[in-house]
Amino acid sequence: MKEFRDDDRLYLDDLQIGQRFTSGTYVVDEEQIKAFARQFDPQPFHLDNEAAKNTLLSGLAASGWHTAAITMRLLVESGMPLAGGIVGAGGELDWPNPTRPGDSLQVESEVLDIRPSRSRPDRGVAVVRSLTRNQRNEVVQCLTAKLIVHVASESGELHVAEVRDAGTAQSLREN
Amino acid sequence: MKEFRDDDRLYLDDLQIGQRFTSGTYVVDEEQIKAFARQFDPQPFHLDNEAAKNTLLSGLAASGWHTAAITMRLLVESGMPLAGGIVGAGGELDWPNPTRPGDSLQVESEVLDIRPSRSRPDRGVAVVRSLTRNQRNEVVQCLTAKLIVHVASESGELHVAEVRDAGTAQSLREN
Repeated sequence: MKEFRDDDRLYLDDLQIGQRFTSGTYVVDEEQIKAFARQFDPQPFHLDNEAAKNTLLSGLAASGWHTAAITMRLLVESGMPLAGGIVGAGGELDWPNPTRPGDSLQVESEVLDIRPSRSRPDRGVAVVRSLTRNQRNEVVQCLTAKLIVHVASESGELHVAEVRDAGTAQSLREN
Repeated sequence: MKEFRDDDRLYLDDLQIGQRFTSGTYVVDEEQIKAFARQFDPQPFHLDNEAAKNTLLSGLAASGWHTAAITMRLLVESGMPLAGGIVGAGGELDWPNPTRPGDSLQVESEVLDIRPSRSRPDRGVAVVRSLTRNQRNEVVQCLTAKLIVHVASESGELHVAEVRDAGTAQSLREN
C-alpha cells in the first residue's frame, strides 16, 4: 500500500473544490468480519454464515461500522494527506451495498466545499465525499464528512487552551 | 448489563413516534482506544497520550468510529430490541465531544419517524435518533439512522430472492 510522506501533507489553502484523492486497497476477510462483529455488532448476519442467509443482508456481510472503520484506515494511510490528520466533526453516511468476505475496498474522495472559519483564522472545514467501492466497482459506503483542516503550515499546531475553551463543535457552528 | 429476551422484540407496528429506549452502559479504557486506533484510525491523537496534547482533540480521545462502534454494541445488546435486528441503511452522524479514556457511555434513542414501505408490505423504515452520552451527561455522538424494520411477526423471515432482487437501497428509495 502506498503511504504518505510528510511533505505531501495538505493544508486548507492547498485544497480545491473538485479535487480528488484515491486510496490504496484493503481486503477484508470472513474472520475479520466476524471478529469486528463479535466486538461491536453481534448480530447473526455478521457472525454466522448459515443464519445470515435468510436475513435482509442475504448472507454474511460486514457491519456497516466495520466498512466505515476500514474506510477510515484507508483515508488515514493513503486516502487523503491532510496536515494535522483527518479529524471529522460529523457527516452523512449511507451503505448502498453490503461488504462481503473477500471484498477489496478502495476509497475515492472528492472535495465538495471549503469553508475558512470566520472566528478562527488557523483552521477551516472541508466537506469531503468519500465513496468506498469493492472490486466490482459497487459502492459499499458513501460518506460526506465535515473535516477540520489547518489553514497553513505557518500557523503551527493549535494551542491547547484555545481549543479547550471553544470546543470543536462550537467552532464548527460558527462557520 | 441488561439483555433482551426474544419476546421483547419489536416490529414496525409496535413502534411509535416519540418512543424512547435507554441502553446499558459501556466503559471504554485507554487500551481499547489505542487498540481500535491501531487497527482502524492510526493517528497520534488516538494512539499517543503525549502527542495528543497539542492537537485539535487536546489529549487522547477515541476515534469517532470507535464511539460509533461502541454505540452500535449498546444498541444491539440493550439499546433497541428490534425484531430481525438492527439494520441501518445510513444516517447522519455528529461527534460534538470526544470520548476519553475511562468514559462510561450510554445510548438514548428516540423514534422520530415511521415509514411503512409502499412496495414491500413486510417492512418499513424507522428513523431513530440515538444520543450517546458520557458519565458527565455530555453528548459524544448524535446519530440519526434510517433502520429497516420488519412489519409483523406473521410475515416471518424475508425471502432471500426477494431481497436480492430489489436490494436494500432500492427498497429504501421507494419509500
